[in-house]
Amino acid sequence: MHKQTITTSTNQYDVFIGKGILGNLKDYLPKEYRNILIITDTIVNELYTEKVVASLPEEAKVSVSIVPSGEASKSIEQYYQLLTDAIQQPLDRKSLIIALGGGMIGDLAGFVAATYMRGIDFIQVPTTILAHDSSVGGKVAINHPEGKNLIGNFYPPQAVLYDIDTLHSLPDKEIRSGYAEVVKHGFISNHAYLEDILKVNLTETIDSNVMTDHLQKGIAVKAQVVEQDEKESNIRKFLNFGHTLGHAIESELGYGKITHGEAVAIGMLFAIRVSEQMLGSKLPYEALYNWLSDNHYPLDLPSKSAAQLVERMKKDKKSENATVQMVLLREIGEPITENISDQKLTNLLENFMRELGS
Amino acid sequence: MHKQTITTSTNQYDVFIGKGILGNLKDYLPKEYRNILIITDTIVNELYTEKVVASLPEEAKVSVSIVPSGEASKSIEQYYQLLTDAIQQPLDRKSLIIALGGGMIGDLAGFVAATYMRGIDFIQVPTTILAHDSSVGGKVAINHPEGKNLIGNFYPPQAVLYDIDTLHSLPDKEIRSGYAEVVKHGFISNHAYLEDILKVNLTETIDSNVMTDHLQKGIAVKAQVVEQDEKESNIRKFLNFGHTLGHAIESELGYGKITHGEAVAIGMLFAIRVSEQMLGSKLPYEALYNWLSDNHYPLDLPSKSAAQLVERMKKDKKSENATVQMVLLREIGEPITENISDQKLTNLLENFMRELGS
Repeated sequence: MHKQTITTSTNQYDVFIGKGILGNLKDYLPKEYRNILIITDTIVNELYTEKVVASLPEEAKVSVSIVPSGEASKSIEQYYQLLTDAIQQPLDRKSLIIALGGGMIGDLAGFVAATYMRGIDFIQVPTTILAHDSSVGGKVAINHPEGKNLIGNFYPPQAVLYDIDTLHSLPDKEIRSGYAEVVKHGFISNHAYLEDILKVNLTETIDSNVMTDHLQKGIAVKAQVVEQDEKESNIRKFLNFGHTLGHAIESELGYGKITHGEAVAIGMLFAIRVSEQMLGSKLPYEALYNWLSDNHYPLDLPSKSAAQLVERMKKDKKSENATVQMVLLREIGEPITENISDQKLTNLLENFMRELGS
Repeated sequence: MHKQTITTSTNQYDVFIGKGILGNLKDYLPKEYRNILIITDTIVNELYTEKVVASLPEEAKVSVSIVPSGEASKSIEQYYQLLTDAIQQPLDRKSLIIALGGGMIGDLAGFVAATYMRGIDFIQVPTTILAHDSSVGGKVAINHPEGKNLIGNFYPPQAVLYDIDTLHSLPDKEIRSGYAEVVKHGFISNHAYLEDILKVNLTETIDSNVMTDHLQKGIAVKAQVVEQDEKESNIRKFLNFGHTLGHAIESELGYGKITHGEAVAIGMLFAIRVSEQMLGSKLPYEALYNWLSDNHYPLDLPSKSAAQLVERMKKDKKSENATVQMVLLREIGEPITENISDQKLTNLLENFMRELGS
């Protein structure tokens, strides 16, 4: 069992990573709760809800709200329905919401907890590799048809309870999606960690110890960044390495057509090329490309024009006054942010698309 | 011009109270904004939007979103529409939302600002007496059909710009509504202030200096409380004096049938009677009753049963584990909170309703 304590501007919470957590949730709750609402999705519900309910304190009143799996559930309608569920239980200010599932559930349930009666406790119980990233850092949100995560809060959980056992049964594309963020944490932190990650073969069963090691290092990278800059005024932006183009691809294709991490993987390749050309950086483009290719990441860009994708990037909420800002690397572990004009960005993207397509 | 600085857990902001602010807004903005969205209601829009737009920096891009006046606009639908407006302008993370109007607009626009891209700056420009209360303290929210302010955040503004000139044209019931919260601030703070307030005659034009004095003292009382307890875990509850029954009356009648302050006025009378009977307090029930009556506050309770109103109080978000908690007074300036059983509360309320009806 690995434990990492994270300090935010409003609280301190522990991230537990290890095996067998799901059968003993009550041992990890930071305080007593008399009223608990579990929010989960249709797929995770089938797999784990029964086990989770059985592992909660007997004296608590527990109910379960289930939303359809997939990013489409991060909608204003589902959000409102969950608030109505919370009122009907009824949850009070001292109640708990448990987010049982991947990043979608963490974001959605977290935003419900953040805004129900102006904020009640919630705990993340992630069941995907990708959630090693999203469950730490306090970002919660829902989507708007015009863009991802446009409606949300900064709202840290009271604990993150991360059971590695849940990760072995993930579909291949979810493993790819999660590992892309692990790779990102490698790129923005240090060379040895990155090299270590790029040795893993995602097409075979990943050793539990190796995966635990990769995830806890990734969480440590993220924790270090968000502790210094919770509200993303500064270095937290570095976590968006690969995300500028990544988000644009996701939203141009429509959420769900490509996984978040798969889109970020293409975004990282692009960010590397831009870093090379604008900063003269020496970066392992080939090594990343080959690892992605060997592990069956989709590497063909959607049949959209570069101009369309640039337009989409400008709508991204990270862009200030409608100039696109990208995270680039001077070298591994040395991210910086750079504003890039529309014209230059379009040129760079056209070249990149040509290279990727060939 | 009176200025009061308020310190929250996340920022510090100034409340300016005085005459002629609306014509010079740009002098009071705490920083430069290139993109500004004014959110206002149909009535306030007619009176002040033109003046406000003209007083903003020329170089800023300004747009205006108008919602129907009245509490019904604090709905999930209006909230979502305003977020869509913000996206379409488009506002970015460094943009500003101005809440121009009464408490409804402050709550609604504040919640939009709190959740748009996880929080952008907003400024309160109150145009009602009631807003002296709601614009300070950082509570923002929308309503759910099951209860008022059930969906929201704690999110302080960057400034409150309070132009006294806007208060003289208010309808009588808005003046009554606002002054009820002034009276509340008197009851929970000190005797001299309360006595001073109960000298005012709301049926005549109130002297600007007198009103400024009453409002700035009320704001000071509120600021002192919320600085000590921003998240309402403790003494902030004292601000709910009169609100337990007040909220129940509002929601049983349907929002808009009685003003917030008018409902709180009846709630204060009830809280005084309960204080007398449970704590043996000596309080000026008659003085308050006569002042309310002289100033044409509606003092007949709705034709609901005491049991119905108690059920409604139990749904209030302040109630923990479904026992009603009321704010009582040991004496003027000495509030406490007390949990009261359903049975006892129903008896007390039946007696009070009988007394009020006779």
